[in-house]
Amino acid sequence: MSAPKPSDLAFVPFVSVENMMRLLHRIGIPDALTGLAAYIEEDFRRWELFDKTPRVAAHSSDGVIELMPTSDGTSYAFKYVNGHPKNTRDGLQTVTAFGLLAEVATGYPLLLSEMTLLTALRTAASSALVAKYLAPDGADTMALIGNGAQSEFQALAMKAVCGITHLRLYDIDPKATEKAMRNLAGHGFTLTACASVQEAVEGAQIITTCTADKQFATILTDNLVGAGVHINAIGGDCPGKTELHRDILSRADVFVEYPPQTRIEGEIQQMPEDFPVTEFWQVVTGTAAGRRNDRQITLFDGVGFATEDFSALRYIRDRLEGTGFYQELDLLADPDDPRDLFGMLQRANDGAA
Amino acid sequence: MSAPKPSDLAFVPFVSVENMMRLLHRIGIPDALTGLAAYIEEDFRRWELFDKTPRVAAHSSDGVIELMPTSDGTSYAFKYVNGHPKNTRDGLQTVTAFGLLAEVATGYPLLLSEMTLLTALRTAASSALVAKYLAPDGADTMALIGNGAQSEFQALAMKAVCGITHLRLYDIDPKATEKAMRNLAGHGFTLTACASVQEAVEGAQIITTCTADKQFATILTDNLVGAGVHINAIGGDCPGKTELHRDILSRADVFVEYPPQTRIEGEIQQMPEDFPVTEFWQVVTGTAAGRRNDRQITLFDGVGFATEDFSALRYIRDRLEGTGFYQELDLLADPDDPRDLFGMLQRANDGAA
Repeated sequence: MSAPKPSDLAFVPFVSVENMMRLLHRIGIPDALTGLAAYIEEDFRRWELFDKTPRVAAHSSDGVIELMPTSDGTSYAFKYVNGHPKNTRDGLQTVTAFGLLAEVATGYPLLLSEMTLLTALRTAASSALVAKYLAPDGADTMALIGNGAQSEFQALAMKAVCGITHLRLYDIDPKATEKAMRNLAGHGFTLTACASVQEAVEGAQIITTCTADKQFATILTDNLVGAGVHINAIGGDCPGKTELHRDILSRADVFVEYPPQTRIEGEIQQMPEDFPVTEFWQVVTGTAAGRRNDRQITLFDGVGFATEDFSALRYIRDRLEGTGFYQELDLLADPDDPRDLFGMLQRANDGAA
Repeated sequence: MSAPKPSDLAFVPFVSVENMMRLLHRIGIPDALTGLAAYIEEDFRRWELFDKTPRVAAHSSDGVIELMPTSDGTSYAFKYVNGHPKNTRDGLQTVTAFGLLAEVATGYPLLLSEMTLLTALRTAASSALVAKYLAPDGADTMALIGNGAQSEFQALAMKAVCGITHLRLYDIDPKATEKAMRNLAGHGFTLTACASVQEAVEGAQIITTCTADKQFATILTDNLVGAGVHINAIGGDCPGKTELHRDILSRADVFVEYPPQTRIEGEIQQMPEDFPVTEFWQVVTGTAAGRRNDRQITLFDGVGFATEDFSALRYIRDRLEGTGFYQELDLLADPDDPRDLFGMLQRANDGAA
């Protein structure tokens, strides 16, 4: 797929949901999560190269539709993603997504891909990457609070990247926990279904919250958070949606992806505008401290940022070649003479006649 | 395509370049241009309903990649479009585009479509719609300055919507004029190839400039613009790119789509921030005057706005049903249980084994 001839550029490789599943199984899901984490880490390392902007959101009473563009000067990517918590009532996904990778020099698309699955994987890979830097040494147990669509991906990424082997699961809906237990069986975990958040956090060095209700909720209260814990707060983020009591934020050192976006959408929307946070890319590059001691509470206020989707699309493009797991999509008009777009249209009719 | 079942929602109708050409020939290009102009007019009429934002641009030394989102509260649309003037040297299009229509209530995509051709048509339809309101009564002759990829579409739209029958063509490259003359033969025009801008504007009531170089150019000087003329200035727009001498802007009444975007990209970037303009939607709704007399110079400083793409996607969607001119794209993950995304992925492997 490198250096295509001009006429090839009219066709854009498209990875459907079915092909994404095939590709992920070909790679192996743990390896895909590790690979994604490595690409995401590489792009955090060259963070300053990227054009960054808070996502462009269209809010409605039912949810939000967002565009998330970014560029490193050579490649450009954007993701279309919606967030509609009520969708599940109608049998629809809360979050669906697709994305595009393009070449900055020509503006021509290079890859179109489903990103509902890919977003789930990149979100989990990002969480695990952050935990690799911030979780206490020797962490092997994670509380998984919220057992919806994102939960299994979080569990597998934390295992693949950080070596988590014990999971303590809790959801307000026991059926969600049953589903996650069923899906995670046979993946090498010791699984414990818990009856409360309090029970789930017992002995856990990492606490992951991934719940989805659109309201100021308090999934985790201050008294449940012990010294030395790493909190991975990634629940579906938007203005008005938080999971943690603000007292936890005050006690913890908070790490974020891109502050202008996190202050709008993340847990820290509860805090003053100047609430101190550390940008995670600075931890990766060594320009800011990560975990400093084993009593410190570290908190990743993850909302998902465009560079992570950029990394994910880059990863998929690099893994796609030779697999055949894509279709060529006739997305771009490509007349022989670029000034003769109309002639191309006109000749198409001559041919049909 | 109306009221699909949930499981159908995982598949998004996709209109390829080839299917777009088939659809346009099925409708007939003049009818398609008239139909698009009517949809664009309808959406200008309900302008105040729309979420509007200047396009989200990623600039580089070679060109620009833009996302153009908008929503009327029920439907959402965005277009991806690039502008790379140097692309033609490598046999590539200066402008390529694709777009998406989605449902605000669920965030689910409804239509994905090529928009390189569709943008050419909607740009021409918008120009013709504006000319219908602003050109002098009885206009039958248009100067067409710049005979590149957009020129034939402009000519056909001005004929279909405004009754233009005489075209006077000029381009700095005579080969471009030859191409346009050849393409427009047999479409009911009287065609005159001209050796200069001065010759082209003789007797024309409408002057269309559609040139593409990225620099401050002066395609049209003040002395060439007579009383009563309507100028349709639609050349590829971006900061630093203009076609008209500023003296023309001072003499004319300037009409624009969305001032915050036009002041950045349009001809009026040469003028002070408070240079007076009329928003075209106000002419359509009757809340602002259009042409007031036959001496007035009216000028459409068209840069292309997201609502026009919204209208175009809406038009295509409405014309698509029953034609078969689309593919169903497996773009969205749609597990039976929306919380069980991972189970869907896992079972895909079981099925393959």
